[in-house]
Amino acid sequence: MVRGPFIPRNWMGACETFEEADWVLVGLPYDGTTSFRPGTRFGPEAIRGASWGLETYSPLQDADLDGTPYFDAGELEFPLGNRDAILTMIRENARDVVQAGKRWLGLGGEHLVTFPVIEAYVEKYPDLAILHFDAHADLRDDYLGEKLSHATVLRRCVDLVGADSLVQLGIRSGPQEEFAWMRKNGTLLETREDLPKALARLEGRPVFLTIDLDVLDPSIMSGTGTPEPGGMSFSTFVEWLMEFRHLNFVGADVVELSPHYDPSGVSTVVAAKVVREVMLLGRKQNQQTAQAAKAAAGTTA
Amino acid sequence: MVRGPFIPRNWMGACETFEEADWVLVGLPYDGTTSFRPGTRFGPEAIRGASWGLETYSPLQDADLDGTPYFDAGELEFPLGNRDAILTMIRENARDVVQAGKRWLGLGGEHLVTFPVIEAYVEKYPDLAILHFDAHADLRDDYLGEKLSHATVLRRCVDLVGADSLVQLGIRSGPQEEFAWMRKNGTLLETREDLPKALARLEGRPVFLTIDLDVLDPSIMSGTGTPEPGGMSFSTFVEWLMEFRHLNFVGADVVELSPHYDPSGVSTVVAAKVVREVMLLGRKQNQQTAQAAKAAAGTTA
Amino acid sequence: MVRGPFIPRNWMGACETFEEADWVLVGLPYDGTTSFRPGTRFGPEAIRGASWGLETYSPLQDADLDGTPYFDAGELEFPLGNRDAILTMIRENARDVVQAGKRWLGLGGEHLVTFPVIEAYVEKYPDLAILHFDAHADLRDDYLGEKLSHATVLRRCVDLVGADSLVQLGIRSGPQEEFAWMRKNGTLLETREDLPKALARLEGRPVFLTIDLDVLDPSIMSGTGTPEPGGMSFSTFVEWLMEFRHLNFVGADVVELSPHYDPSGVSTVVAAKVVREVMLLGRKQNQQTAQAAKAAAGTTA
Amino acid sequence: MVRGPFIPRNWMGACETFEEADWVLVGLPYDGTTSFRPGTRFGPEAIRGASWGLETYSPLQDADLDGTPYFDAGELEFPLGNRDAILTMIRENARDVVQAGKRWLGLGGEHLVTFPVIEAYVEKYPDLAILHFDAHADLRDDYLGEKLSHATVLRRCVDLVGADSLVQLGIRSGPQEEFAWMRKNGTLLETREDLPKALARLEGRPVFLTIDLDVLDPSIMSGTGTPEPGGMSFSTFVEWLMEFRHLNFVGADVVELSPHYDPSGVSTVVAAKVVREVMLLGRKQNQQTAQAAKAAAGTTA
Amino acid sequence: MVRGPFIPRNWMGACETFEEADWVLVGLPYDGTTSFRPGTRFGPEAIRGASWGLETYSPLQDADLDGTPYFDAGELEFPLGNRDAILTMIRENARDVVQAGKRWLGLGGEHLVTFPVIEAYVEKYPDLAILHFDAHADLRDDYLGEKLSHATVLRRCVDLVGADSLVQLGIRSGPQEEFAWMRKNGTLLETREDLPKALARLEGRPVFLTIDLDVLDPSIMSGTGTPEPGGMSFSTFVEWLMEFRHLNFVGADVVELSPHYDPSGVSTVVAAKVVREVMLLGRKQNQQTAQAAKAAAGTTA
Amino acid sequence: MVRGPFIPRNWMGACETFEEADWVLVGLPYDGTTSFRPGTRFGPEAIRGASWGLETYSPLQDADLDGTPYFDAGELEFPLGNRDAILTMIRENARDVVQAGKRWLGLGGEHLVTFPVIEAYVEKYPDLAILHFDAHADLRDDYLGEKLSHATVLRRCVDLVGADSLVQLGIRSGPQEEFAWMRKNGTLLETREDLPKALARLEGRPVFLTIDLDVLDPSIMSGTGTPEPGGMSFSTFVEWLMEFRHLNFVGADVVELSPHYDPSGVSTVVAAKVVREVMLLGRKQNQQTAQAAKAAAGTTA
Repeated sequence: MVRGPFIPRNWMGACETFEEADWVLVGLPYDGTTSFRPGTRFGPEAIRGASWGLETYSPLQDADLDGTPYFDAGELEFPLGNRDAILTMIRENARDVVQAGKRWLGLGGEHLVTFPVIEAYVEKYPDLAILHFDAHADLRDDYLGEKLSHATVLRRCVDLVGADSLVQLGIRSGPQEEFAWMRKNGTLLETREDLPKALARLEGRPVFLTIDLDVLDPSIMSGTGTPEPGGMSFSTFVEWLMEFRHLNFVGADVVELSPHYDPSGVSTVVAAKVVREVMLLGRKQNQQTAQAAKAAAGTTA
Repeated sequence: MVRGPFIPRNWMGACETFEEADWVLVGLPYDGTTSFRPGTRFGPEAIRGASWGLETYSPLQDADLDGTPYFDAGELEFPLGNRDAILTMIRENARDVVQAGKRWLGLGGEHLVTFPVIEAYVEKYPDLAILHFDAHADLRDDYLGEKLSHATVLRRCVDLVGADSLVQLGIRSGPQEEFAWMRKNGTLLETREDLPKALARLEGRPVFLTIDLDVLDPSIMSGTGTPEPGGMSFSTFVEWLMEFRHLNFVGADVVELSPHYDPSGVSTVVAAKVVREVMLLGRKQNQQTAQAAKAAAGTTA
Repeated sequence: MVRGPFIPRNWMGACETFEEADWVLVGLPYDGTTSFRPGTRFGPEAIRGASWGLETYSPLQDADLDGTPYFDAGELEFPLGNRDAILTMIRENARDVVQAGKRWLGLGGEHLVTFPVIEAYVEKYPDLAILHFDAHADLRDDYLGEKLSHATVLRRCVDLVGADSLVQLGIRSGPQEEFAWMRKNGTLLETREDLPKALARLEGRPVFLTIDLDVLDPSIMSGTGTPEPGGMSFSTFVEWLMEFRHLNFVGADVVELSPHYDPSGVSTVVAAKVVREVMLLGRKQNQQTAQAAKAAAGTTA
Repeated sequence: MVRGPFIPRNWMGACETFEEADWVLVGLPYDGTTSFRPGTRFGPEAIRGASWGLETYSPLQDADLDGTPYFDAGELEFPLGNRDAILTMIRENARDVVQAGKRWLGLGGEHLVTFPVIEAYVEKYPDLAILHFDAHADLRDDYLGEKLSHATVLRRCVDLVGADSLVQLGIRSGPQEEFAWMRKNGTLLETREDLPKALARLEGRPVFLTIDLDVLDPSIMSGTGTPEPGGMSFSTFVEWLMEFRHLNFVGADVVELSPHYDPSGVSTVVAAKVVREVMLLGRKQNQQTAQAAKAAAGTTA
Repeated sequence: MVRGPFIPRNWMGACETFEEADWVLVGLPYDGTTSFRPGTRFGPEAIRGASWGLETYSPLQDADLDGTPYFDAGELEFPLGNRDAILTMIRENARDVVQAGKRWLGLGGEHLVTFPVIEAYVEKYPDLAILHFDAHADLRDDYLGEKLSHATVLRRCVDLVGADSLVQLGIRSGPQEEFAWMRKNGTLLETREDLPKALARLEGRPVFLTIDLDVLDPSIMSGTGTPEPGGMSFSTFVEWLMEFRHLNFVGADVVELSPHYDPSGVSTVVAAKVVREVMLLGRKQNQQTAQAAKAAAGTTA
Repeated sequence: MVRGPFIPRNWMGACETFEEADWVLVGLPYDGTTSFRPGTRFGPEAIRGASWGLETYSPLQDADLDGTPYFDAGELEFPLGNRDAILTMIRENARDVVQAGKRWLGLGGEHLVTFPVIEAYVEKYPDLAILHFDAHADLRDDYLGEKLSHATVLRRCVDLVGADSLVQLGIRSGPQEEFAWMRKNGTLLETREDLPKALARLEGRPVFLTIDLDVLDPSIMSGTGTPEPGGMSFSTFVEWLMEFRHLNFVGADVVELSPHYDPSGVSTVVAAKVVREVMLLGRKQNQQTAQAAKAAAGTTA
């Protein structure tokens, strides 16, 4: 043997075994239906690398990953170009995680990777609700004649959970029909006044959190396939996330990082920090410091 | 023949003929008087390419390009390095458009390309007013002894329309004299309280809208020659634009994109989206959805 | 109308109509089976743009595009992610071109786009031979269980034309089996001594020329999905090409440019120059200048 | 001789001699203890280059560099890799500046370069206070066993001036212990309500201003070693800075620009503009234009 | 558990255990004495990632990694900035490998990482010789007063093995004194006529092969700290390497990849391919294909 | 004063005064007639920065800058966009240098900057000859109707010195007419057999050496406006240069570096090394090492 010490290859701070984990991180390097700029296949590996620049402590939530065991399962190795086999493979792995009573944390890859996970979740949680951050509604019924693509993925999820189990934030681009659909079905959380209604959809139910990183403004997330100006700053995003932190999140994913398009590496750092904040959701907050955390989130920044 | 189908080479959604158009897009690949970083000559082609990633529908304005016929005339082919011949060529083409009762939409190129267009416009509209978004006032009387350059262009336009026909937003860099001039002439719209006064200058008159993209913060518009920190976010820019949407815009241009300086491509996407919003100004808004549109512009983002 | 003049959007110097053309350029923006770095979908548009920096005259061949009519048909608009429909669309368009007695010049896109074109060619030319420049043999019988991919494309072509109708240059990477196959079937032109044997396979027959740009060394062609060091310099490539210039080329393609990976833009310029040289193959050389051209190709460079 | 004119190599507008200067700019190209992405050694030269794109007039402060003599001393030439000798060299140069009654303006380089300067300052100003903008507290007592590094630099400064002489803004990343320390010692200015308390620490005392540029959001400052999303926009940063402009600043530094990580060059422009604003702090404001300046800082942007 | 399959995180094709290995790959992410452009700390991880794009078969050597067991030990985790402790850690790990009868394959990092490995090797092989590919001689006796740096590393190795145990290729930059030293000591292999003399130094002895990747021309290896034009092409490098393939290589390293400086990723691919060729040195060649392999190395390329 | 030591801002190793100099380096940041990609205005400053990574010793020529006094005059500050005033300013500065008996070494900037220098030279040296390395002949009589541009510059020089005073190497792109002109006038050195005839034109006369860096292959010089594949490697370029080293060079320039297009920085390093080799031309070679130098130029590389 060689004595080392060696730099671990897992996520910074990940636990040793699947069994002890609460969250299970699974890389999903798939970008097969991407219509504009491909490259989200490189997302999971990039995020893992950037995890080593993170602190385990989040001043935003005044909580520390140290008390949150998570396992880094690695990246799935997909049969190239075979969309249906890939979706099956994701569904089966997600089922392993869900049935073991753990929380899935998928790292995309394009947004289509969310659908087979929802399939696995509704088997266990028939009353699943979905909290969806995105620039695009992804609600087309089909896209260029195709039922399964990044542009239809939330519509397919709605087929499984129903439109009244969906809450969407940040949507700012799409055809007129999608906006009409969202208004008709009340899925779009548009202003802070809509928050109580949105929470009413989600509270008391198992919630899956799906974050398309292009919900963030391209000033901070240029490394994505279809950047949409007018998005949330990182601080605004976190403030919204905090409004939901008391919910019962049973799984999550963070998708659409395309790291090569941001040569500064900032997008990848942002993605890694989003993952950290997601894993800390629901952690009990240190009461005496709650005020300071709130301040850090919203005041000098 | 070959059967295709082929990807069109025009702007996404452009109409077939000049005759049916309301707006006429003209590329103006000129950067001959640029003092810092050249490259706006590559702007028009980049914007056209990015147009294909846009939706035709703007949730911000709840309006759709489908009802706004616009013709993509292409990029003018300039005699290299001959500034005066280039300005003449622009003026003559602008006159064609204006005299045909259509609206010019110039795609720069550096800001100097606005001047010959204003010359063509005042021939038809002697009472023309100008709404100007920019980081720089461009009001020098001369620049290094030169009367016609990107740094003097608005001053030359003022020579034609008068200082009281000008409204300027976003100006945040320049010599002390330019700020003094703006204050003396009341051209600078500084706070929301100044809005009524600014609108009073513009309402009831034909208005030309000239947008130097560096009015945006370099966080979202790094692809420009002289980035100036402290600019508007995309959302703030759009909010300001909406304050003027009821005006009678008879022409416009969007200038100073230098796409090579932003390897992420975000600046080009932003520029294309700005062009879309400009073409939708004045479109009648779908009343039942006006509230949602307002929310989209200002709340979750 | 606007008077212009406008910069043409076709390939530099292309003729006006399909009918008058000898070569027909067709863009094939497909990268669906790419295993490593995607992005060849951006190749055709990039090459067209770079064509405007080319001279029409090639000192290497002492020949000028002025006497070579070629038509720029544009880029096919593919149904996203549907490989089989895409291949069908290419085959049908290629058939149009071949049956009209013209020469196809496909601009990739990944190498799989060659296969449907060969299908169209063998219908008209049952004795078709193929001259293949590439870093990779692309001769796998299947790849990850898949019969149709960038890694199997030449094997599929061999199914149509037979192994003794194939000549390959530049191959320098692949599994041991592919090298064994090439040696067994005598397809690999390894040294200049092999040239007569290779020419014997091709002379007197209709020849299709397929150039995977990664045959060039990544020093000059970094903008490709799977760069392989140890390739040809541009000069060496052209020298090899000249050995075959007397052949009867009935069609060609130039594939695997992935322009975003080369921020200097050099790879795209190289690709455009390769296309120019291909279109000039077989043009009658100006006798009095032949010596100078030969010198230019091989001496001071 | 050659007649020129030649472009000066100093900072734009710098005065000719040390003697006439108020501020003395010193480049400190050191990044020896950087743990993540190195490259701040290239910072000082980049900032000097960008200075030539600046105006001398700041509309934010309605003040002009013309009345602020500053001398560009150049970049120190460090003995490579010898941290202790480097710190000594900085301390001695800083002592020269301080003892001559001038104001040091260090251009980093990593943050460790602040410590020897503070050593030189406390010799002359035993009651020195420190105003600290940063994303990271830099308050570890040691880092990987090391007492002197970029992660401990403010703690070492506190050893010299005491915790109650420190005010910190923008801190948003670090281990839980650092946040506890800041709360215990009251160094962290979290909300605007804390401002009076912070000012009470600083008013009436000589103040050293140290700005780690990663206090800015990576959307505007991607060119830094450890980008931290959730930071200040440029406008917010300047607003905070203005709250302190009446203080008695006896020296300053601007550190942690790593220009190669931002290929757009925006980070470097931002850094140069920060330096300009720092040099203008305390300049008497032109009364008649104070209102316009305030508007420019906070309203349309 | 989750079922996978997962993408391995080791080098492509690495064996499972240290015990079964012939070569042991160890990442050495150190760039502490780099004088020009830092960043080789990112080299080892980049090379591992690129290994997945390689074939296991080398047509150049007609040999396959399948019969060459190698273990990927990972990257050493260094105490930041403490050069001496880092060198000790490398020496101890190298000693583990050498004493276990295995071959060390270090992945740099800067060239200084070679020295402690040579210390470990001479303990076991007192008659060790060194074959050195580099653009720079690295033979200074000290550099800025420092005995241990990237610029002195081969001189320190010579202190251990003697000048007549060193053979150097590709050296093309340095002060006049280094060239004088090399000529006096006969270490520099300048022309093919010198080859017999160089081989005489190495044959029959245990040889350590150290490759500074900047021996390659920057056209193919731009991702390095001090690029030196006029270097070897990849093909020339491999041809030289083949002249030594019959030697008894007991260890090797490949250093000075700085991947961020080559945004095309080509340098990293080249580095990975160099590592593959090094591991195949001395593998018995398939006789019937030897001729083809020779041709592939030197003819069409 | 501050004690320093400070990094000099001149070229590495430059002498203190104009009077003691042999060569005088003058930066010429002009790119006003560039037709494709602008940016050579950034060339001179980039080369000066890269000079600090050079050794003063050239093994290629076995000569050292230590015995070659050269003065770094700085960069001329041009009146923006006024081509004729710029050319006048260059001519006057060149006249200062020439009349003082010193050698001009212009650093471009675009190639047009050579013309006014030749004007100044022919005043003093009526029998001036020109040695011209370039990818393009630059021999058009006019370009888009313009007599003075980068595409006509050598033709304008020929107007002054006559066609039989010109020798050109590396030309590989241009319209048919330029190649015909070169053949008619015997200016193009095509093969090594033409060398005696070329030398006969130059020997015994004062020679001005003008090097357009695009004579180099874009693999090593991607940072230029119009990259032309098929150029010289750095080694081949130097070999050609050595054939002329005995000539009486009275001045030189090195033009067309556009550094932003090569993010790896290699092009800039190459340009700086070319400048070093030019300044060493004609230095007396150390006889005992001449053989080694020759080997270094042509054998292992």
